[in-house]
Amino acid sequence: MSLETLTWKDGNLVLIDQTKLPNVEVDRVCETVEDVWQAIKILAVRGAPAIGVAAGYGVAIGALRAEPGKVVEDSLKAADYLATSRPTAVNLFWALDIMRTLINSHDGDEASLTAAIVEKAIWIHDDDRARCHAIGENGLPFVKDGATILTHCNAGGLATAEWGTALAVIYAAHDAGKKVAAFVDETRPLLQGARLSAYELNAHGVPVTLMCDNMAGIAMKRGMIDMVIVGADRIARNGDAANKIGTYPLALIAKHHGVPFYVAAPTSTFDMSLDNGDQIPIEERDPEEVFVIGERRMAPENIKAFNPAFDVTPANLIAAIITDKGVINSPSEEKVRALIEA
Amino acid sequence: MSLETLTWKDGNLVLIDQTKLPNVEVDRVCETVEDVWQAIKILAVRGAPAIGVAAGYGVAIGALRAEPGKVVEDSLKAADYLATSRPTAVNLFWALDIMRTLINSHDGDEASLTAAIVEKAIWIHDDDRARCHAIGENGLPFVKDGATILTHCNAGGLATAEWGTALAVIYAAHDAGKKVAAFVDETRPLLQGARLSAYELNAHGVPVTLMCDNMAGIAMKRGMIDMVIVGADRIARNGDAANKIGTYPLALIAKHHGVPFYVAAPTSTFDMSLDNGDQIPIEERDPEEVFVIGERRMAPENIKAFNPAFDVTPANLIAAIITDKGVINSPSEEKVRALIEA
Repeated sequence: MSLETLTWKDGNLVLIDQTKLPNVEVDRVCETVEDVWQAIKILAVRGAPAIGVAAGYGVAIGALRAEPGKVVEDSLKAADYLATSRPTAVNLFWALDIMRTLINSHDGDEASLTAAIVEKAIWIHDDDRARCHAIGENGLPFVKDGATILTHCNAGGLATAEWGTALAVIYAAHDAGKKVAAFVDETRPLLQGARLSAYELNAHGVPVTLMCDNMAGIAMKRGMIDMVIVGADRIARNGDAANKIGTYPLALIAKHHGVPFYVAAPTSTFDMSLDNGDQIPIEERDPEEVFVIGERRMAPENIKAFNPAFDVTPANLIAAIITDKGVINSPSEEKVRALIEA
Repeated sequence: MSLETLTWKDGNLVLIDQTKLPNVEVDRVCETVEDVWQAIKILAVRGAPAIGVAAGYGVAIGALRAEPGKVVEDSLKAADYLATSRPTAVNLFWALDIMRTLINSHDGDEASLTAAIVEKAIWIHDDDRARCHAIGENGLPFVKDGATILTHCNAGGLATAEWGTALAVIYAAHDAGKKVAAFVDETRPLLQGARLSAYELNAHGVPVTLMCDNMAGIAMKRGMIDMVIVGADRIARNGDAANKIGTYPLALIAKHHGVPFYVAAPTSTFDMSLDNGDQIPIEERDPEEVFVIGERRMAPENIKAFNPAFDVTPANLIAAIITDKGVINSPSEEKVRALIEA
């Protein structure tokens, strides 16, 4: 994979505009905090870890563009504003908290604060790259040679700085010489599976079979799937994991067929303030995303749509959570605490 | 509902071209047997009962267009040819068998045979209308006042001569003054839920909420769905039911959440020659249906797609099968036989 999901260039954030993939690969340049907010909002950049990285750079842009004497004020304002872009992925708030802590504790002059903010944003970016690599390595033992692996949405390089989370495990297995094949749920309404995961898995040389979200039942019944691996947008301290809409039913179907179901996520995805998944806020998005596909309206007028962007998979349906710090088998609060608070 | 799914007019079969809904309502005129075969193949007419009706008229067109002396030969040839259009819906074979039996047992002249064939095709059409009406009445007791009912694909008037099967139950409840609301799965890849069910339920005055196929899990978890009702394309004698892809996972999810799951189908949908659902042939359709939506390609090149058009829901996930002859609660071979062979 040579795709650069996010690039910091001359004080601007350059993103691959993921709304345009796979038809065209085009950059989107964010020069202002508002540009970064919009890019997150419309999913030009998406995926919990990548949103965190983008938000870090957004605060850096806020500091760089601040008038003299207003670096602290404007960069904190940028952090507050960026926090309103999307509600579910906790990595966004994690990255913004890191920036806020830095800003509030800094005691140098404005130039050194600005430099420190930019440096911290780059650190978040590098840190994510390292975490993804570690997730791939930690997930490797779960992948049998010859395995066919189902994934949902895009928890790949395009959702992170590089490599991804769920897809990092597939890439690690592929690169280690294991013969793996991927089944990809297209992931309605925004088709991140079809547009992004199929695209990058294929570019990496992994054989890809695309299917609609409603086909996992028959695929598992026929024994076509050996394991499921997905990412996460927020994980509560009992191991309940929010991820792209459709993940929860997939986990139910996998359980019914005895197919192991794995979640791969950096430790920055854990929200230890939440008892369980019921407390994770679920973003509800514009009904038009359901009504219109590829510029063609596919539904009659005068009806409503239900369009939650995420659902929560309870810990008891998850065989293991694979993180950068290690693996949590059969997740529970005790085991999550043992890993995260270690 | 005033939509005429199929109309017999001056010796031609006139269909609402369902590939064009909901954007435009346009007729498709079938003048030859090949026209009817194509209309079934591309899903201009679809839904198990409607396919049966169309096939009956297709044989009638074969008889009407036959050269003198070749009515028996050409109408039987039409029946054999139409049988190759789609493999799963048994109503197709049921209707063609009725036509073949008539043709093979007729002992009058060609003019009277042709007249009898046309009359029989019209009878199949009328018979379906009556069956759908009976299904609606038989399903009525299952619908509580105030119920929100989830359906998948289109088992409505557009899938039958009139009223539909699953939707007939909703229409019957609505017309009886019960306050009902519908949730409709969009039903990828061909979006019959969004394009057809949402369209006709809305036209009938039933409040409609559309959602993607992967959203039933969260909807049921939140208690938004009181019952699920779907149609069927073929039912084995143990009660296993083939229906549009995505029905089986929906039944699993419903079971997990204690939401009753109903199948509504005319008795012509039962295939008593099959022990169970594993013996039902499942049509695999063109990968392009998955790759391209609304003329825009949503997937990269050089990948494969899995595109089964149906899956099988085992009888143990079905609360009841609602037919024109009565209801089979907790279906089993014994109970199916008792109703069908009565």
